[in-house]
Formats: sequence, C-alpha cells, structure tokens
Amino acid sequence: MRLHSSSLHSSLRDPVLGSIGFLNEVMSRYPEAISFAPGAPHPDTFEDIDTERYVDRFIDYLVQTGRSPEQARRLLLEYGPSRGIINGIVADALRRDHGIDAPENTLVMTVGAQEAMLLVLRALFRSAEGVLAVANPCFVGIIGAARLLDIDVIPVDETDAGIDLDGLERTCRSSRENGRPVRALYVAPDFSNPGAAHMSLGGRRKLLDLAEREGFLVIEDNAYGFTAAAGAELPPLKALDTARSVIHIGTFAKVAFPGARVGYVIADQPIGSSSGGTLLADELAAVKSMVTVNTSPLCQAVIGGMLLEHGGSVIELSRRKSEIYQRNLTCLVDALDRHLGDGSHPGIRWNRPCGGFFVRIHLPVPVDTALLEVSAAKYGVLWTPMRQFYLDQAGDHQLRLSCSYLDPERIEEGVRRLTAFLSEEVERRWDSGGIG
Amino acid sequence: MRLHSSSLHSSLRDPVLGSIGFLNEVMSRYPEAISFAPGAPHPDTFEDIDTERYVDRFIDYLVQTGRSPEQARRLLLEYGPSRGIINGIVADALRRDHGIDAPENTLVMTVGAQEAMLLVLRALFRSAEGVLAVANPCFVGIIGAARLLDIDVIPVDETDAGIDLDGLERTCRSSRENGRPVRALYVAPDFSNPGAAHMSLGGRRKLLDLAEREGFLVIEDNAYGFTAAAGAELPPLKALDTARSVIHIGTFAKVAFPGARVGYVIADQPIGSSSGGTLLADELAAVKSMVTVNTSPLCQAVIGGMLLEHGGSVIELSRRKSEIYQRNLTCLVDALDRHLGDGSHPGIRWNRPCGGFFVRIHLPVPVDTALLEVSAAKYGVLWTPMRQFYLDQAGDHQLRLSCSYLDPERIEEGVRRLTAFLSEEVERRWDSGGIG
Repeated sequence: MRLHSSSLHSSLRDPVLGSIGFLNEVMSRYPEAISFAPGAPHPDTFEDIDTERYVDRFIDYLVQTGRSPEQARRLLLEYGPSRGIINGIVADALRRDHGIDAPENTLVMTVGAQEAMLLVLRALFRSAEGVLAVANPCFVGIIGAARLLDIDVIPVDETDAGIDLDGLERTCRSSRENGRPVRALYVAPDFSNPGAAHMSLGGRRKLLDLAEREGFLVIEDNAYGFTAAAGAELPPLKALDTARSVIHIGTFAKVAFPGARVGYVIADQPIGSSSGGTLLADELAAVKSMVTVNTSPLCQAVIGGMLLEHGGSVIELSRRKSEIYQRNLTCLVDALDRHLGDGSHPGIRWNRPCGGFFVRIHLPVPVDTALLEVSAAKYGVLWTPMRQFYLDQAGDHQLRLSCSYLDPERIEEGVRRLTAFLSEEVERRWDSGGIG
Repeated sequence: MRLHSSSLHSSLRDPVLGSIGFLNEVMSRYPEAISFAPGAPHPDTFEDIDTERYVDRFIDYLVQTGRSPEQARRLLLEYGPSRGIINGIVADALRRDHGIDAPENTLVMTVGAQEAMLLVLRALFRSAEGVLAVANPCFVGIIGAARLLDIDVIPVDETDAGIDLDGLERTCRSSRENGRPVRALYVAPDFSNPGAAHMSLGGRRKLLDLAEREGFLVIEDNAYGFTAAAGAELPPLKALDTARSVIHIGTFAKVAFPGARVGYVIADQPIGSSSGGTLLADELAAVKSMVTVNTSPLCQAVIGGMLLEHGGSVIELSRRKSEIYQRNLTCLVDALDRHLGDGSHPGIRWNRPCGGFFVRIHLPVPVDTALLEVSAAKYGVLWTPMRQFYLDQAGDHQLRLSCSYLDPERIEEGVRRLTAFLSEEVERRWDSGGIG
C-alpha cells in the first residue's frame, strides 16, 4: 500500500523532525571534515565507563537494602514500575548537589530527557486549549514533541541573559486575550541549547514570580547545568520554586553517557482539590505506561550504580566531564577571538558563554544549507545553521558551533578552517553584494 | 501550583491508563495470594541470562564486521541512529524464522512494542481523520496509545478464531459512510492478549484481501506467536502480505526478557508517488527522534548478542520459553477441566487456546473489582476482570487467567482456590439471585 504524505500526521512534514537526520547525512558525506555540528559527548568521557561494574554495584546496593541476590538480579530483567527503580538515588543526588528537595514519589525515570518532555506535554495540554511558550531560539526536541501532540508553540525571545521576561509577560497577556493562555514555558536557564543563555539569580526569581502571577508552569531543562564554569553555578529554578510552578527535567546522557537513555522528571504538582490526591508525577507515570511501559531497569541499574560509585553525587559523577567541556569552550572562544577578533572581520560576531556546549556566530549573510555545503566541501568544516532552532526568522544569519566532542587541537584547526571559509566565501560575497 | 484534573489531557481520566496500576496495587495488598493476573515472564526464563556475555558477543560481532574494538565499545555508549543498530540481525531472524522478507531499512528498533504502537499511530493518524479499528477484546496498550493521541477507536468483535471479518467489513462500510474511514486495524492473529484468538490461514488471507479492498493498514502484533503449540504455528500476516498492507510489531520482552525494553516495527510502505521516496519506517524513525531519540544501544547489544548466541534465530532463542508456556497453558486448561468441567458448574465456561498466556472464564455474574476483592481476601486467588479489555459491555461477565509466571503446582492450587471461590461465592450468589 502506497501512502500519500498528506495522509500522514502533519508533524512529519515539519522540518524539525528531519533536522537531526540532515546533519547526520551531511556529516556522513564529509567524514574528513572537522565537525562543530553535533552536541555529542567527548570520547574521553567514555574511557572509564564499565557498565558491568556499575550493574554489580547497584545489585550490591539492592542486597544491602534488603533484597536477596536473586531478587536483585531479577529486578533488572523483569518489567518494573513505570515510575522507575532508582528514583530514591536520583532524588538524594538532586537534594545534595542542587538543593532540589524532591521526594522520591515526585520523580519519574524516563527514556532520556526527550521522553520526559513528551510525557509532560501530553499530560498538560488538551487539544486546542493553551499554548506552550518556548525560548527562541529553542531546543528542537521540545518543539518536535509539541508538533507530535498538535500543541501550539509560541516563541519568546531569549538573550544571553536568558528569556526576555517583559516579552514573556506581554506574550502571556496577548495569549490570554486571544483565549489561548500560556499553559507552560519551556526554558533551559543554564546554558541552553543552542543559545547558551544563562539566567541570573534575580532573573530566575522574577521568572518564578511571573509564573505564579500568570498561572503558567515552567518546564525547566537542566541538561547543561553541570558545565558551569567555577563560580558561575546558580541554583536551578526548581531549587527556588516555593509555589510548585516548576517541572524539572534532567538527563544522564551528558553527566553519565547517552547510550543508557536514562533521564528523569520531577513533577510535584498536586492534582485536584483534596489533600489525599495524586501528584503530576503519578499522571506522568500513567502516561509513560502507554509510551514505553517503563525505562529499562538494566539501564537504570547502570546509572544507579554509577551514581553510587560517585558517592551518590551527580557533581562527582560529572566533575571530569565538566572540566573537559569547560576547557573546550575556553579553547573555542579563545580561538575565535584570536582568528576573527582582530578587528578585520567587522560583520562577524559571537557570544562568549561561561558554560554549555555551544557558541553562536552572527554572519552578515543568510546562513543556509547551501552555505554549509560550501563550508564542508571546500573548507572541511561543518557547523549547524541556527534557523532550525528559531520559530521565526531571527536566526537566519547565525550558525552554531559545538565544542563538545573535539580535542583542543581540532578546535584550533577547525576555527582556522572556519576563518578561511568566512574570509573567502562569506565576507567576499558580502563585500561584493553577491549574497544579501 | 495545584492542577485541576479537568485541565489535564483527557486520556488521564481514561480507566485504561490506570488499569496496570490497579492490578499492581491489588497484588501488593495480597502478597500471599496466587495471582493469575499478570502476564509476566516465568522466573525460569531468567535463569541462564547473562547480559555481560551477550554484550561481549555483540561487540565481537561488531569487530568481525569491521569495527575496531574501541569503536564497537563506543557504539554502545553513544547516541545512535533513531532506527537502531541491530536491525540487520533482527531482519535476518525474521526472514529465517517467520518467512518475513523485510529488508533492514524497513525496520525500526523501539523501546518495546509499546513505543512501536505509539510511533505507528502517530504517523498514520491526523486529527479527526480516520479511525482505528481494534479487535474487541483488545490489548490495553494500543487503546492507551490511541487515547494519548486523541485517536478514535472502534471495536470489531473477536472470537476464538480471530477477528470477525464480516463485522470488520460492515465497520469499514459504516465508518466510510460516516466520513471517518477505518485507517488501520490493530490485531494479534497469534494468541492475542487477552482473547487468545488464533486466526486460521484462510482467515489471514481473507483479512489481507479485505485490507487491500477497503484500503486500511493492518497493525499486526506478534508478541505471543512463539508460544504456539507444535503444529499450531502459522505464518504471520506480514509473511503473507504481498500488498504491503501490514505493519508488523514485535517485542523481545517475552522471547528474551522484558528489562531490555527492546521491540521493533516493520513498516515497508512507500510514501509519496515517486519511486525514490521514503518508507514509512523512515517516518517512524523521525517520530521516534522526538519520543525517545533512540533505543538504548546497550540494550540493543544485549538482545543482539543473545540472538547471535542462538544462531541468529528467534525460534532457538525462545524454544525453552515456548515449552514452559505451553506446559503451563496445558496445566491450566487441564486443571479447569478437572475442577470445573464435571458438569456441576453449568454457568461457567472457558476457552482452550493452543498458545499464548491467557484463558478466559465466562461467569454467570458480572465480574468487577468488588468480586476480585472477595476472591483475593477470602480465597487467596487473583485474576483480571475482562471488562478493561473491552470497548463495550461484552466482557462484563468474564475474567482473565494468566498462566505465564506460575509453576504447575501453583496453577493447580490456584485453580483449586478459584473453584472454591466460584462455587461458594459466584454460583451461590447466582443461585440465590444475589448478583444479577
């Protein structure tokens, strides 16, 4: 049976769903290129990983806490509760490391942060009621999940200092007047992907005040918080949240390793009017039972054992990784400053974040896939056009560089190639008016 | 922030989403009861499992097929392609074991069969266009996934011989006339959960003819095919599908172990009019990138290694499990025949399937949770009310027994307790007109 693409769900024609595939395809065609495209983990972060040892460590823990060795072993092989089996270990780590006081029953373990986003959006949104506000530029995963569920998304500008709070307030007002109130805001206050925005403590408090006043929930994504440069660490929104406005999403993809596919969501919002009611976490677990049933207990055991081996601390678990990513980010920004910051490239500018994987470069010309092809084919350097992260045209002149998985010498060489590309292709074309 | 349950997605108020939680809750309150409720794997099927060895086996395979040991190891730890990394091994097994000739690029590996269902439904259904026909009674997982996506579900009666084809044809006609044509049918032709229906070869061919004539897709769930008694094996619909009408969903939860959370979907339907277009599998992989990104490569490695260790054959992998479940099913049916089949229980009847995990019992009284509480508290035996599997009232007088995870002596004792319960509570009440 041949299917017409118009008969399939509308999300399938959204470029967001194809964005990752496109980047992989370009990378596969230019295997020798230096790629600043993927936000993949650095290979050094895999060196010490020993999944067998972590599983054994977790089984030991289960035995110490009252199970027989056979029961412990079987827990990893059977189905398990939709909400997860390492919730207590994760809750303890978040309390200790981040000051998030989330009881175990407010957590649901998920198949990465992506599933957590889908669960949260599904639970919170009814068809044609309410809209999701997102930082603009925005992580494609949340937009993609919203598209799958036919949830309308409305952009709110994000600067280096985080989401524009005045703009958000205006958006809340106009959305309410249009009968489609902002139900939730998606934001990554700590080094967002791709914007690398970092909200100040004051900004965080103001955002929470606004959420309470306007009655929207804040979906906080904390994937990159661990990369903060020393002294730049700030408490996550959830640690400041006294009104239960924040749903906090995290992942072990970066602080442990992506192949485990383990993330989590904290959702301590009470449902209904009675004091004996359920929590949003209970509802998310029910939704999850119809999405993936449960997160692989084997994978949860790997992550649980890994955490236990590091004293139950995410900060300890991620310390070396954090150092690698801080080193790389410094290398990248330094190289850009040295190669492009001598005043001879007036149309080109970039941000200098203090954490995260990403730097954005503004060019004087539109940045599209044709330009990427030139960069890849003639200069051997890959990057990501920013327009795929924007819900409007604001990113059309930007590209994103990721420094996560390269070594310092490759970053240096990559920036050298990028400089040649920008000088010879972009600035020349701009000067001659060839690209407007 | 307190949330009103009426402000959450409507699926959260559907009893289907709470059904698994309810059973777990009852089981936890009666830990000493013999439970025929869960379709969980038999503990003996876990005995030989050695996940470390399987991972090593898969890494050996990767090295033999051209990767360096370090590349192989990293493949298991990194992100990976949304469509999966063991597709070729699984495709070979399905060709060899089941005569399903599905090229590797038509497969997507998923987080169990549940995610496969969600992906397929999301891709195929647009809001308010088309309906999903399902066998009635029906696996709750497909109904739950449809509810999450606001997809309307229409029941088609299923007998022991499978879906009622005349009823299906009538449903197609009336749905078309109502402007909401049947877009797809969900069916498990080999020992469905909970009906244990088994379609004949002729019935399978007629269903495929009807699908082609009426223009609907068939979503085939093959979770229990491996439990067929010797001689009762029939080719899956996908092996008979010459018109690409069938989307085939499978899981390794039963033939390997559930904790891996690995399933798959075959979707070889071409999209669009050109010959160089995409396949439905490509679209499912794109949807998956926004649901779970990818299936844990570590878990895929465990399953891949397990398959390789069994000569790349699902039949070899599941042989011992198949024997255990056939033994248990025979024990259960024999025990029912001995204890309840002497003619003194005229209001009670049951089916005698030749595969699967489940037997249904028809009672002369309504079967509800109150009756389950009596059975659990006074007689120490648990089962599942069938009404949760029906979209209408047809199952109100039925209960489901699962034989999968008990040993023969427990099955015997369980049926003894069940007989006491039925004799003393159900038949007495029926005789006295106490329950109507």
